[in-house]
Amino acid sequence: MNALDRLIILLSKLPGIGKKSAGRIAYHILDTDSALAKNLAAELSGLHQAIRRCGVCGGFTETDPCSVCSDSGRDHSIICIVERAQDMRIIEESREFHGVFHVLGGLIAPLEGVGPGDLSIGKLIDRLHGDNSDRHIKEIILALNPTVEGDTTALYLQKLLKDFHVDVTRLASGMPVGGDIEYIDRLTLSRSFRGRVKV
Amino acid sequence: MNALDRLIILLSKLPGIGKKSAGRIAYHILDTDSALAKNLAAELSGLHQAIRRCGVCGGFTETDPCSVCSDSGRDHSIICIVERAQDMRIIEESREFHGVFHVLGGLIAPLEGVGPGDLSIGKLIDRLHGDNSDRHIKEIILALNPTVEGDTTALYLQKLLKDFHVDVTRLASGMPVGGDIEYIDRLTLSRSFRGRVKV
Repeated sequence: MNALDRLIILLSKLPGIGKKSAGRIAYHILDTDSALAKNLAAELSGLHQAIRRCGVCGGFTETDPCSVCSDSGRDHSIICIVERAQDMRIIEESREFHGVFHVLGGLIAPLEGVGPGDLSIGKLIDRLHGDNSDRHIKEIILALNPTVEGDTTALYLQKLLKDFHVDVTRLASGMPVGGDIEYIDRLTLSRSFRGRVKV
Repeated sequence: MNALDRLIILLSKLPGIGKKSAGRIAYHILDTDSALAKNLAAELSGLHQAIRRCGVCGGFTETDPCSVCSDSGRDHSIICIVERAQDMRIIEESREFHGVFHVLGGLIAPLEGVGPGDLSIGKLIDRLHGDNSDRHIKEIILALNPTVEGDTTALYLQKLLKDFHVDVTRLASGMPVGGDIEYIDRLTLSRSFRGRVKV
């Protein structure tokens, strides 16, 4: 197997990249001058050294604590709970939220053998107890996907957090902006009705 | 900008990968153990050294001439002309063709300033003149996309090759297998009618 075939096989292991796309990408890299390949190689080989988990929120970062957790300009009394570190990036890009984060590292999924003990819940409780900088937490926003696993995890956290004097909220679920009632599934429509707001 | 952001920007330069996909891929690489990143880095950094153009057909190869051109078991009297080296791979994977190839390196596109002089046509004529191993060429198959540029290039080559005693053929154009007449565009349907075959 030659170098090109080996690269195509490696590329096709990446999420969302099939064999055809991997081929297209490999030929593109080969057709382009070698700078792109060299730059990609350099970034990839240094990636795991450069990036670690933030000790506070669990997000990926170069510095520990991360830029969000160490930013005194942000509202440390609101914690947004996300499933994965990449969800944090997407929320950050929306510029909608100015509090801090907590990465669970997964969702409760009994069928896949993932229980509460596998998630970063102990650390969240520590944060609520004020073991570190986040002393007066007022609100916990559950930014979990509206799926069975997301709902289960939200319900679990909701019960767990009942004893703390903290508001627990969850992102609204309903019709996406620009969506069409004709093409919305029954469950989403049902949630839109239940979560309807007064105008 | 941190290492993760830099990787995402580089990844989003690859064909078919937008900003969201680049993010997904970068987080996947980070979540996976570092072996995938290291292997990808190694392949990418060595790629341009390992892979060159075949001096005969113009395809990408580790050895010159490439494994197809140097294979005496193949029919060297039939040359399949393709636009890009990756088209060669796709035809090879179909196992439909047992001759040899010639990579044009593009298609005639006057609006983009690409003329016949920019393509590897001189080398093709050399091959027809028997300057190298392909002495008795009987057939030239034009495996060019059925687009305006592909049609223009096919017409140009057809005229150019008239003086050589060689059959010039072109891949059939028409309805794709599994296609539905209802959803076929007018031009394809028109080609299917013109190219209809007796059953």
